[in-house]
Amino acid sequence: MKRSDLRALLGRVRRGKISPARAAREIGEAPIEELAFATLDHQRALRVGFPEVVFGQGKSPAQLVAIAARLYRRSGLVLATRVDEAGCAALRSEFPEAEVHERARAVVLRRGRAARPRGRVLVVCAGTADLPVAEEARVTARTMGSRVELIADVGVAGLHRLLAHRRRLRGARVIVVAAGLEGALPSVVGGLTDRPVIAVPTSVGYGAHFRGLAPLLAMLNSCAAGVTVVNVDNGFGAGYAAHLINTAGGR
Amino acid sequence: MKRSDLRALLGRVRRGKISPARAAREIGEAPIEELAFATLDHQRALRVGFPEVVFGQGKSPAQLVAIAARLYRRSGLVLATRVDEAGCAALRSEFPEAEVHERARAVVLRRGRAARPRGRVLVVCAGTADLPVAEEARVTARTMGSRVELIADVGVAGLHRLLAHRRRLRGARVIVVAAGLEGALPSVVGGLTDRPVIAVPTSVGYGAHFRGLAPLLAMLNSCAAGVTVVNVDNGFGAGYAAHLINTAGGR
Amino acid sequence: MKRSDLRALLGRVRRGKISPARAAREIGEAPIEELAFATLDHQRALRVGFPEVVFGQGKSPAQLVAIAARLYRRSGLVLATRVDEAGCAALRSEFPEAEVHERARAVVLRRGRAARPRGRVLVVCAGTADLPVAEEARVTARTMGSRVELIADVGVAGLHRLLAHRRRLRGARVIVVAAGLEGALPSVVGGLTDRPVIAVPTSVGYGAHFRGLAPLLAMLNSCAAGVTVVNVDNGFGAGYAAHLINTAGGR
Amino acid sequence: MKRSDLRALLGRVRRGKISPARAAREIGEAPIEELAFATLDHQRALRVGFPEVVFGQGKSPAQLVAIAARLYRRSGLVLATRVDEAGCAALRSEFPEAEVHERARAVVLRRGRAARPRGRVLVVCAGTADLPVAEEARVTARTMGSRVELIADVGVAGLHRLLAHRRRLRGARVIVVAAGLEGALPSVVGGLTDRPVIAVPTSVGYGAHFRGLAPLLAMLNSCAAGVTVVNVDNGFGAGYAAHLINTAGGR
Amino acid sequence: MKRSDLRALLGRVRRGKISPARAAREIGEAPIEELAFATLDHQRALRVGFPEVVFGQGKSPAQLVAIAARLYRRSGLVLATRVDEAGCAALRSEFPEAEVHERARAVVLRRGRAARPRGRVLVVCAGTADLPVAEEARVTARTMGSRVELIADVGVAGLHRLLAHRRRLRGARVIVVAAGLEGALPSVVGGLTDRPVIAVPTSVGYGAHFRGLAPLLAMLNSCAAGVTVVNVDNGFGAGYAAHLINTAGGR
Amino acid sequence: MKRSDLRALLGRVRRGKISPARAAREIGEAPIEELAFATLDHQRALRVGFPEVVFGQGKSPAQLVAIAARLYRRSGLVLATRVDEAGCAALRSEFPEAEVHERARAVVLRRGRAARPRGRVLVVCAGTADLPVAEEARVTARTMGSRVELIADVGVAGLHRLLAHRRRLRGARVIVVAAGLEGALPSVVGGLTDRPVIAVPTSVGYGAHFRGLAPLLAMLNSCAAGVTVVNVDNGFGAGYAAHLINTAGGR
Amino acid sequence: MKRSDLRALLGRVRRGKISPARAAREIGEAPIEELAFATLDHQRALRVGFPEVVFGQGKSPAQLVAIAARLYRRSGLVLATRVDEAGCAALRSEFPEAEVHERARAVVLRRGRAARPRGRVLVVCAGTADLPVAEEARVTARTMGSRVELIADVGVAGLHRLLAHRRRLRGARVIVVAAGLEGALPSVVGGLTDRPVIAVPTSVGYGAHFRGLAPLLAMLNSCAAGVTVVNVDNGFGAGYAAHLINTAGGR
Amino acid sequence: MKRSDLRALLGRVRRGKISPARAAREIGEAPIEELAFATLDHQRALRVGFPEVVFGQGKSPAQLVAIAARLYRRSGLVLATRVDEAGCAALRSEFPEAEVHERARAVVLRRGRAARPRGRVLVVCAGTADLPVAEEARVTARTMGSRVELIADVGVAGLHRLLAHRRRLRGARVIVVAAGLEGALPSVVGGLTDRPVIAVPTSVGYGAHFRGLAPLLAMLNSCAAGVTVVNVDNGFGAGYAAHLINTAGGR
Repeated sequence: MKRSDLRALLGRVRRGKISPARAAREIGEAPIEELAFATLDHQRALRVGFPEVVFGQGKSPAQLVAIAARLYRRSGLVLATRVDEAGCAALRSEFPEAEVHERARAVVLRRGRAARPRGRVLVVCAGTADLPVAEEARVTARTMGSRVELIADVGVAGLHRLLAHRRRLRGARVIVVAAGLEGALPSVVGGLTDRPVIAVPTSVGYGAHFRGLAPLLAMLNSCAAGVTVVNVDNGFGAGYAAHLINTAGGR
Repeated sequence: MKRSDLRALLGRVRRGKISPARAAREIGEAPIEELAFATLDHQRALRVGFPEVVFGQGKSPAQLVAIAARLYRRSGLVLATRVDEAGCAALRSEFPEAEVHERARAVVLRRGRAARPRGRVLVVCAGTADLPVAEEARVTARTMGSRVELIADVGVAGLHRLLAHRRRLRGARVIVVAAGLEGALPSVVGGLTDRPVIAVPTSVGYGAHFRGLAPLLAMLNSCAAGVTVVNVDNGFGAGYAAHLINTAGGR
Repeated sequence: MKRSDLRALLGRVRRGKISPARAAREIGEAPIEELAFATLDHQRALRVGFPEVVFGQGKSPAQLVAIAARLYRRSGLVLATRVDEAGCAALRSEFPEAEVHERARAVVLRRGRAARPRGRVLVVCAGTADLPVAEEARVTARTMGSRVELIADVGVAGLHRLLAHRRRLRGARVIVVAAGLEGALPSVVGGLTDRPVIAVPTSVGYGAHFRGLAPLLAMLNSCAAGVTVVNVDNGFGAGYAAHLINTAGGR
Repeated sequence: MKRSDLRALLGRVRRGKISPARAAREIGEAPIEELAFATLDHQRALRVGFPEVVFGQGKSPAQLVAIAARLYRRSGLVLATRVDEAGCAALRSEFPEAEVHERARAVVLRRGRAARPRGRVLVVCAGTADLPVAEEARVTARTMGSRVELIADVGVAGLHRLLAHRRRLRGARVIVVAAGLEGALPSVVGGLTDRPVIAVPTSVGYGAHFRGLAPLLAMLNSCAAGVTVVNVDNGFGAGYAAHLINTAGGR
Repeated sequence: MKRSDLRALLGRVRRGKISPARAAREIGEAPIEELAFATLDHQRALRVGFPEVVFGQGKSPAQLVAIAARLYRRSGLVLATRVDEAGCAALRSEFPEAEVHERARAVVLRRGRAARPRGRVLVVCAGTADLPVAEEARVTARTMGSRVELIADVGVAGLHRLLAHRRRLRGARVIVVAAGLEGALPSVVGGLTDRPVIAVPTSVGYGAHFRGLAPLLAMLNSCAAGVTVVNVDNGFGAGYAAHLINTAGGR
Repeated sequence: MKRSDLRALLGRVRRGKISPARAAREIGEAPIEELAFATLDHQRALRVGFPEVVFGQGKSPAQLVAIAARLYRRSGLVLATRVDEAGCAALRSEFPEAEVHERARAVVLRRGRAARPRGRVLVVCAGTADLPVAEEARVTARTMGSRVELIADVGVAGLHRLLAHRRRLRGARVIVVAAGLEGALPSVVGGLTDRPVIAVPTSVGYGAHFRGLAPLLAMLNSCAAGVTVVNVDNGFGAGYAAHLINTAGGR
Repeated sequence: MKRSDLRALLGRVRRGKISPARAAREIGEAPIEELAFATLDHQRALRVGFPEVVFGQGKSPAQLVAIAARLYRRSGLVLATRVDEAGCAALRSEFPEAEVHERARAVVLRRGRAARPRGRVLVVCAGTADLPVAEEARVTARTMGSRVELIADVGVAGLHRLLAHRRRLRGARVIVVAAGLEGALPSVVGGLTDRPVIAVPTSVGYGAHFRGLAPLLAMLNSCAAGVTVVNVDNGFGAGYAAHLINTAGGR
Repeated sequence: MKRSDLRALLGRVRRGKISPARAAREIGEAPIEELAFATLDHQRALRVGFPEVVFGQGKSPAQLVAIAARLYRRSGLVLATRVDEAGCAALRSEFPEAEVHERARAVVLRRGRAARPRGRVLVVCAGTADLPVAEEARVTARTMGSRVELIADVGVAGLHRLLAHRRRLRGARVIVVAAGLEGALPSVVGGLTDRPVIAVPTSVGYGAHFRGLAPLLAMLNSCAAGVTVVNVDNGFGAGYAAHLINTAGGR
């Protein structure tokens, strides 16, 4: 039952065409969810800067273009993640205005200018091999509307590189830390700041790494309070949550 | 917004006290779920024979009695599972009419006589050590209203014991099979009948059994089609699903 | 010992050619299984609508065609699952009447018209990526003789899409729910209906998903009673069990 | 090298007692960390409302009292978690002003009045068995200075209970969701709101639950964006991170 | 259908009371297994020296005595494994002739004298902590009728102790090797002999031993051909299989 | 120290060129193993029918031919396992007399005629997909000198096929059972015979099969005594152990 | 063949009582290991400072005393690890000179004065809960003859505490690092020094820690080169290896 | 703050341009790490023989050449590991002086002559399939400056091959042992020597080997004291640690 249907029904109640009791019964029996969720969905549509998201993995270039085109018409802001080279080329060819983030394997389509970024999200990664995941987090949070900085290659076996950035750690509202191998970086970062830390284990490693299980377990057992964790290689999820946190206090 | 509130609001629309537009807005903003779910809950309440269920594990005898008493007042039919000896004693002492099923570690409270059991559920178990789980399935399905038979101790290493019951296997509408160790029985039973089989791995075993993981995996990989699986030692879940299947076709 | 041999032996008893004692001994020593299982196999052969099944994975197009041809001759109804593109093409070319279900990766060969579908199986899946598994379940149950409906893309992060279908959930005799990622959908569906639910975890996910382990464990621990589980991606098994349940009460 | 030492050295440079080159060398060789970290530690000490934390598990009542007393003298605000009954009694007897949160197994010692709580953290849990973990999160965030609300027993098998609280979900800055069994609640909550969600798997379950592994994997694979995860039963960590997020935007 | 029933039926065929066709149908429909399996069971009953076996774990002393008494009456030879101290005492008190093997936690009841042991089984164990498992294997094989020798404490970190027994290794028909920790002994033994080796991983170890998983995996991956494996701590199973192998060639 | 060196040394003792004390010291300090192991190695060389074995996996056709040629010269009997198509072709081209077992992926080179096979090994497999593993076992045991029979496609979901072979089960000295999926077949076979059973889990399956883990665990937990287990897909190991058992009693 | 037997044999060769050829054969056939290993064992006995070791876990006080007494008589230096309170008391009562290390749960018996410690082993641990493991490493290495220092409670979430000890890190020959939770400390220490680091994961943690699995995997994946790992809680093994390394270069 | 900046600041203090107090504050607030870590990094640069290391896996030939060239300019000694064939060719073409170690998949670039190797590292491996890992360890330790010997193919199933090398085992300062399959070799080697042993599990195996998990667990549970472990296939890490140990005592 759409809002217009409801209003029509109530008009009939007003005009005495239908009794209140029967109207109540009709409302109660309608697939009332449309009503119940209308507000929510409308709200979502109104949130400037929340992009439509396409998970590109396993999709052909043609599928990618088709899906992106449909979403783009609707919302004017689309983020495609896990897009391979062919997919990037296809999107760029179809949408000349597309921002292609190669290392992040992400593409952004945007109508009009981006709003001024808000707050401050810091993305940190342990090794250069973790960069694609860190970049995915950066692009995601930035596309949603956050100001984002990225510090790369500050692994725990060379602490001085990390310590040199201590001020930037403290200047962020939320910090995303991507690390493979033993996944120790989030604990060290968490000990240097009192900001919330989102840890992203990456699949960078071999042998008893089990494709990310080692850093995942390490991060879940972090000795630093304030650390929460997302799935292995889930840069998108980390960037998304970071944006929500970054802007949570602003309302 | 309860149905009475809705009806009052509609009365005010009828009387011109409030415009249809504003009423529509109020309805749209109300915590409309009460309406949306009213039907469902009412339906549930009407289903004769569906007991209220208490998971007894980790509850003290006093807690058990208190919870059971409250539910008993409401519905007249209560099933308590995973009740230890002290809990059984407490329930029996408080409710002299309680049926105590010791091996199943289950207690049933019922006001009035049980309805005549319907259909036919067959519960089969591999070894005597699996009996508590099989009994829990039996008591659950029976309390919900199914006719249930139990065949015990028909492990796959002594096939003739199982084959002797082949007619009963074919006479059931659904078969629950509980087995520990290697969990092979559901596959063998599934090959002897075309009825749906619900497999329950039990934690009976040691070493590389990993408290039920071995038969759980075995059952998920059954070579016999028509086999579905529930959690380790989950006799309750198997009995519950068996009753639903046993009575599914009757409507 | 075939039935004809047995009858011949008994004729010799009748004619006094052989003593009852010796005949009894011969019967007891014969590979008596042929007798013991004759009924069963005969029954199976008589069940209209039960297809012969070919598991296509790892088979070449030529092997597929050869196996399917042999079974088709025997029974007139063949279901091939997990058939890749080349296999589909080969079967279609050999059997022009073949129904090819591309998304389900399944092919059905049928002599004559299908019987009218019975009962009602509902197949639900969480995301579009789960569709191949859901379709495999749908085609399996349909080929066996069930009436089947399919609802796609009703994940738990957008509840209103699921709630909009609540009436269809209640109108089914059994519901198959396929879901990857966290595998939460069967619990939510199970809470909205009192029909048996067969949960199928899919391998859709990455990282700590472990190719379906995450939703498999989730489904085995479902808080909704009445949920049973099959192996990861086992749409065939779910559809097969669903058909058995759908028709179990009809006899 | 303490700040006073450094200042004395510089005074000697000023007075010409020592050359700048040599002073530079001395500074470079000193265990300079004391300087480097002084600011950080001082800052920490100044943060009003951040309690000293005692992990009570495995500590005797006497040890608990001794540790708590020392920290209490220093900071005036102590939070002890995972305190068993004997520990609670000992702390209450030693510090009559102690707030004892029995269900959370937590004790708070506070000198003076608590500051007015800020922002809004919402803690939600699926079943009553998850309450101790949810309470630990609530007490932690509250003790740190957040305003906290708690909604209990809104499992996904009874969605209407959760939907009835939808407004409160949207009114929070951050939501903590504790759930055992299949751990589906965070996904459903995440789909109803755009606030960051911290998921806490609990060890409530049995069999293929593996003491929290099932909901942990489910939560890491949540289909709802914006969900991050902490360790099994880690209510403290969730509450701590929630407080950081709740107050992150306020600066 | 018992053999006597069959014979009676055939008598009626002989006397013309019943037609061969109808008799054939009756035989075909009877629960014919009793016939099919009669030979097998009788054979089993005739095998001298095969004891009835009681798995003592989880059984009370009273239950043990009751079960053992029943089996003892039937067969005159009973082996009870995994019997705790109380169980041993109870059995000894009830059956003064009982042999109690304390380290093996096993009890043997035997009427009459044991037959002369046959062949030669060698049981080897790595450390003294593995002795209970090795002893269980020894007692099992001995009770079944094999001649058994035991060599203890010949771990791989002290090879000379093992090498000193090389001749005995070669003199056995089959060798059982029990080892915990890294489970390397079966490979080393397998390299010193061409006899079949049955490896028994034990739960002796800690940490990354996972209660026997480490030696279990090691043994399954043995670089020495001719090694087969049984479940963790399954001394009974190893001894049983060793006896079968020891006497396999004798027929 | 070779035997010739030792003899020379003793000659010098005899001739008084060196004192017994010093000779004893030299012998004690020599790398005496060559002596210690001489017997063993000589014995091995003398065992007619024991082939040299090449594990073909990961080896190029050229490597295979080179290794096989060297071993063939030495012993006149070579078994190569896990040889891919190209490897088979290369071996056949180099050694026209090679027996190529395609399904087993094995090649045998033999100079002269094979000895008459001894004893009786029975190899049984559950499904046609398990045949390559079963064949590897068959070829291995046969090449070593055992008489071997193979029964294929007797899965537990169709028991009558297995029961029809019951006499052959009892006629073997040792039985190898290969099975994937749930791995139930060894338990059923073990219950029908009193011969030692070697179970080989295969990697045939998908999803929660974990490439053979499911049947491996099942087989380790077999309820039938007398069952031992080898590694997943290790048909070679099973055949090797079966031959040792088959001939163990003959000496 | 003992050395004296060999010398006697050679004497007979000298005296012409036996031919060199026959003597060579006798030597070759003797259980020659006694010779082969004599040197090794003698060497071991001569190594001053290498204690006899008793693994105390699972041993009664009486057993402990008996074993220790026997070893003490033989070598004059005994180390008992994993001794519980009762065991410590028993050993102290029997051997008044015993050094009891309560936190390490270790007892040392020593006749005469300890030799002057050599080299320098540094033991570092992350939290106070890891101290028992660190202490076990310290006592082990010290008892074997190494000079050992211990730095406690320098977790990675408070880097400044660790950095303050940087000079001591560089002054050691080998460093043992014990850590539970996420096990990050060895990587950080490894990055601050070029000495070999032995990492000991401890079982300190809960939930997804899996009793030490999390830090074990983390340590195996350390991004710092030069880190090797021992079993969970294996302080003894770490201290033993550290001593060997500490003194390896001294010869 | 670089050292030159610090010196300039101190000059201003000397000249009275700035007060000591303010200078102290500036020093305290500077990113003081540059100072704190200067010594360390300088030290590292001075250590002759420590190569720069490139992890070649996943890098294109062009990337490899570019990275190696940059490092080579800086340090004159570069070690590239896990380089595939194309990478080896590219490096050899760019740097004609490159040492290419094909089996080790490693390339060394060195300006000038290598220093004379020190100490003695022994690398041992079980089978030829483990050789690449053993070679990687050998090349790594050798490139860092150690003298290294390699013994190949001394698996535990043929002990005499290992025992023949016992003297070389005792002549090393540290021993690296690489083994796949059951990983038993480190325990046997550890029992034959009192030198520190570094165990490297390899991924050589199949089935229940789980790509190196089996030998990893075995090695962590070694019954021989003095054994430490690195990650699966981590020959580099083992060689690196071995070099550190080999030269630890030399200072």
